[in-house]
Amino acid sequence: MFESAELGHKIDKATYDMEVPKLREALLEAQMDLAKSRTFPVIILIGGLDGAGRGETVNLLNEWMDPRFIQTHGMGEPSDEELDRPMMWRFWRELPPKGKIGVFLGSWYTWPILNRVTGRANAAELDQSLERAKRLERMLTDEGALILKFWMHLSKDKQEKRLKLLEENPKTRWRVTNRDWKHFKQYDKFRVVHESVIRHTSTAEAPWTIVEGYDPNYRSLTVGKVILEAIRKRLDDVDIKTAAIHAPPPPLPPIDQLDILKTLDLNQKIDKKKYKTDLEKYQGKLALLTRENKFKDITVIAIFEGNDAAGKGGAIRRVTSALDARWYNIIPIAAPTEEELAQPYLWRFWRHIPRRGRITIFDRSWYGRVLVERVEGFCSKADWMRAYSEINDFEAQLVRHNIVVVKFWLAISKDEQLKRFNEREKIGFKRFKITEEDWRNRNKWDEYELAVCDMVDRTSTEIAPWTLVEANDKNFARIKVLKTLYKHIEEAMQKE
Amino acid sequence: MFESAELGHKIDKATYDMEVPKLREALLEAQMDLAKSRTFPVIILIGGLDGAGRGETVNLLNEWMDPRFIQTHGMGEPSDEELDRPMMWRFWRELPPKGKIGVFLGSWYTWPILNRVTGRANAAELDQSLERAKRLERMLTDEGALILKFWMHLSKDKQEKRLKLLEENPKTRWRVTNRDWKHFKQYDKFRVVHESVIRHTSTAEAPWTIVEGYDPNYRSLTVGKVILEAIRKRLDDVDIKTAAIHAPPPPLPPIDQLDILKTLDLNQKIDKKKYKTDLEKYQGKLALLTRENKFKDITVIAIFEGNDAAGKGGAIRRVTSALDARWYNIIPIAAPTEEELAQPYLWRFWRHIPRRGRITIFDRSWYGRVLVERVEGFCSKADWMRAYSEINDFEAQLVRHNIVVVKFWLAISKDEQLKRFNEREKIGFKRFKITEEDWRNRNKWDEYELAVCDMVDRTSTEIAPWTLVEANDKNFARIKVLKTLYKHIEEAMQKE
Repeated sequence: MFESAELGHKIDKATYDMEVPKLREALLEAQMDLAKSRTFPVIILIGGLDGAGRGETVNLLNEWMDPRFIQTHGMGEPSDEELDRPMMWRFWRELPPKGKIGVFLGSWYTWPILNRVTGRANAAELDQSLERAKRLERMLTDEGALILKFWMHLSKDKQEKRLKLLEENPKTRWRVTNRDWKHFKQYDKFRVVHESVIRHTSTAEAPWTIVEGYDPNYRSLTVGKVILEAIRKRLDDVDIKTAAIHAPPPPLPPIDQLDILKTLDLNQKIDKKKYKTDLEKYQGKLALLTRENKFKDITVIAIFEGNDAAGKGGAIRRVTSALDARWYNIIPIAAPTEEELAQPYLWRFWRHIPRRGRITIFDRSWYGRVLVERVEGFCSKADWMRAYSEINDFEAQLVRHNIVVVKFWLAISKDEQLKRFNEREKIGFKRFKITEEDWRNRNKWDEYELAVCDMVDRTSTEIAPWTLVEANDKNFARIKVLKTLYKHIEEAMQKE
Repeated sequence: MFESAELGHKIDKATYDMEVPKLREALLEAQMDLAKSRTFPVIILIGGLDGAGRGETVNLLNEWMDPRFIQTHGMGEPSDEELDRPMMWRFWRELPPKGKIGVFLGSWYTWPILNRVTGRANAAELDQSLERAKRLERMLTDEGALILKFWMHLSKDKQEKRLKLLEENPKTRWRVTNRDWKHFKQYDKFRVVHESVIRHTSTAEAPWTIVEGYDPNYRSLTVGKVILEAIRKRLDDVDIKTAAIHAPPPPLPPIDQLDILKTLDLNQKIDKKKYKTDLEKYQGKLALLTRENKFKDITVIAIFEGNDAAGKGGAIRRVTSALDARWYNIIPIAAPTEEELAQPYLWRFWRHIPRRGRITIFDRSWYGRVLVERVEGFCSKADWMRAYSEINDFEAQLVRHNIVVVKFWLAISKDEQLKRFNEREKIGFKRFKITEEDWRNRNKWDEYELAVCDMVDRTSTEIAPWTLVEANDKNFARIKVLKTLYKHIEEAMQKE
C-alpha cells in the first residue's frame, strides 16, 4: 500500500517554480467560487509520519490560498470541557461551515492508531473505532461535505534522514521531539497499523491520498493539485445530491392498520389525590438523587417528543422543579439558525451536549428529522431515511460516554387533542400555545402517526429505548415521566 | 440599605393564589411579545444570601414562563477553558440573544465579593472590579440589553432560621452545605461588603432590586412583578435608543489639516537582498520564540487593519509561515452572522478569544466599528462614539489576563493604492481581491483618514498601542510587522 510512496518521488525546482503560480491561481479561484457558492464545506485531514511535512503543508496551503476561508485545527490534547463530552464533540465544534475549508492536523484516526500501537486497544477495538470513523465520514459526505484525507508517508530510512536534517538545522530543531524518535523506533509497528487503518477507511466517499513526504516540491504540488481537482469537480456537479444515490426504499405502513401507538391505553388515569402524593414522592426522590455526589459523574440527556398539545411543557416543568436550576438546561428546538444551516444536521444538537453532572432537556430534538421534516417534506426522503442510523450512531456515542439518554413520546388521542386545542384558545395565558400550524399538523395526523411508529421501530434501541407515555391524562403522564427518568438515572448511578 | 428588606414582608396564601394566575398570564404574554419582537435580550442576575431562595425563584420563573425562551446559568467554578481566558469570557459565551431571557445564578459580582470578604482583595481592588462591572453593564444596556439585578436578602436571624428549616426537611437538606454555615458565621462581614457593592452598582441603567427572601410568596410575587413591568415598559418604548441619550459630541477634524498619518514617511524601503535576509532572520527568531516552553503561558492577539490593498494578507502570511499551524488561528472579520447580530457588538470577537499558548490573528477587527461602520453609517454616531471606551475596556481585560495585544495599521498613499488596484485587476489570481466596494471606499479616502486618526488618538494605549506601518513598500512593511510582533512577545515572555 505504501510502495508507490517510497519510490523517491521528486520535482525539480524549475518545474516547481513553473507550476506553482498556475496552481496557486487556480486554487484561489476555486476557493473563491466555493466561498461564493456556499454549497458545501471542505474537510481536509492531514495525517502521516513525524517529519513527513504535515505542518509545512498546512502552512503552505494557508500561504497559497486565502487564509480567510481556511480554518486550521491542531487536535492536540483535549481540554477538560472536551474530555467531559464524547470524543467526537471536539471535532464537531470545529467543523467548517459551507463555503469554508477546515484543515485538521490530527483527526479521529489519531487516537485509535496510538491506542492500537501502544496496546491500549486490541485489533477488534481498533476496527470498531474505524467503523465509527467511516460512519461519521459517510454521514458528513451525505450531508454534502467534501472530505479529503492525506497521508504523508516516509520510508524508514527517509524518516530517519528527515528527522536528522530537521535536528541539524537550528531553525527547525524545535520540530523534532523525543516523542518523534520514540515513535521512529516503533516504525514497523506503526507502519502495520497505518496500513490497515488506511485500507479500512479508504472509502468511495472519502478516500485517502498517500503522499511521499520527503521532497517538499513533490509533496506540495501533489496535495495542492488533489485539493484543486476535488473542489473543482465538486463545484461542477454540486447539484447532484450524493445522498440520493444511497436512498433506501421507504418504509411501508402496516398492512393491517395495527401499529404500536394504537396498542396504547391512552386513558389510564391517576386521581388528583394520588397525583399530589406521587408527584411529591418522585420529585423528592429525583431531587435527592441528583444531589448525590455520585451524580457529578453522570450526564443526563432527556428528550421530549409528542403530539402537539400532548403536554410536553407541563411534564418538563414537573421534572425541572425537582432539579437545581444551576445544573439543568432546556434546549427548545425551533427553526435552525443561519450558522446551523451551514452545518451538518446533527451539529445544532452536538453544540448543546452537556458536561458531566448536568442534565439537558431537549424540547423536541434531532427526531424532528424523521417527524416534521419527513412529513412536511423539509428534507429529501434519502435524508430522513439515513437519519435513523445516523441518530442511532449519535446516541451510541452519547451512551458510550456514560450519558443517560431518556426519550419520551407523549401520546394523546385525536379527540383529546381537539379538546385541548379548543381549551387553549379560551384560556388567556395558553393562547400563545396554539397556532395555525398546530391545526395544519392535525390534518396530517395519520402521516405523523406512521412517522412516529417508524421512528420507534428504528430508533428504540436497548441502549436508548423510547418510553411511550399515555398522556390523555396529564397527571398519569407526568408521574410516568418522573418515574422513568428516576429509574434510568438511578440505574446509571449504580453502574458507576 | 437593607432596612426595608428586614421588615418581615409577607403575602398570605389567599392573595398569592389570587395574584399568581394574572401575573403568570401577563408574564407569558410579555415573554411572547419579547420573543416575537427580537429587539433586545433580558439579562437577569440573581444574587443574595444562602437560603434566601435564589434557586427556588429561578425554578419558579422557569415554571411560570415559557422555558423555551429562558436560559438559566449557574456560574459555579470556571472550567479550564474558562480559566484560560479573561474572567468575563464565561459570561459573554452565555449571553442571551435578542428576544430571550438569560438568568444568571451568580454573576460578575460573585467573585469580587468573595475575594473581598476572604481578604484576597482589598477595598481598592473591589472598587476596581465594581467599576468594570458597571462599565460592562453600561455597554450592554447601550447595546439595548435590559438588565435586571435582584438581591435576595435575609436578616441574620431569618437566615439562621431558613437554613435550619431547610436542614430539618429531608427534601431540602441537600441545599444546606457546610459552606453555607461557614458563610453565615461571617454574616456581618458579608453584609458590609454586600451593602457597598449594591450601593456602588445600583446605576440608572441597571439598578438592584433588593428582595426580602424569607417569605416565598412575597419573594416570588415581587420578582415576577418587577420583571413583568420592566419587560413591558421596555417593549413599549423600545424604539427609544438608550444609547442616543449618551451621545457625546463628534470629534473635530484637525483645523490645520495636519494629522498623524500625514507625518508618516510612507516611502521607506528595503531592497530585495536585505529583505530576504531580514525575513529569514525574523521569521526564524519568531519561530524559535513561539516554540519555547514559556510561550505556553502566553496568549497573543494580533490585529491587522489598514487601507484596502495595503498588504494585510501578505503581512499576515509572512507571520504565519513562521508559526506552527496548530497554534495559530486567523479570524477574518466579514459581515456578522444572524447569531452575531442578535448579540452585543463585541460578542463576535469575544467568541474567538484564544486559550493560552495560542496566537489569534484578526484580519480586520472590532475597530470596524469606528472605521467602516462609522464612515458608512452602519451604526449610529452614539454607537461608534461609545465604542472607543468599550474597546479600551475590552483590550484592558485582555491585557489584564496577560494577553499580548498587538495592533497594526498598514498605511499606504492614495497613489500607491490606485497603482495596486490597477495591478490587481490585471493579475489573474489577485483579481478576486478587488471589488466595486474597494473603489467606493477609495472615494471616501479623507473620511477614512479622519476615522483612522481618531481611532489611533483614542485607542492607542500604553497597554495596547497601535503600530503604524509605512506600507508603500511591502518588504519594509512585512519586516516591521515581524520585528514589532517579535518584540512584544519577547517582552511579555520576559515578564512571565
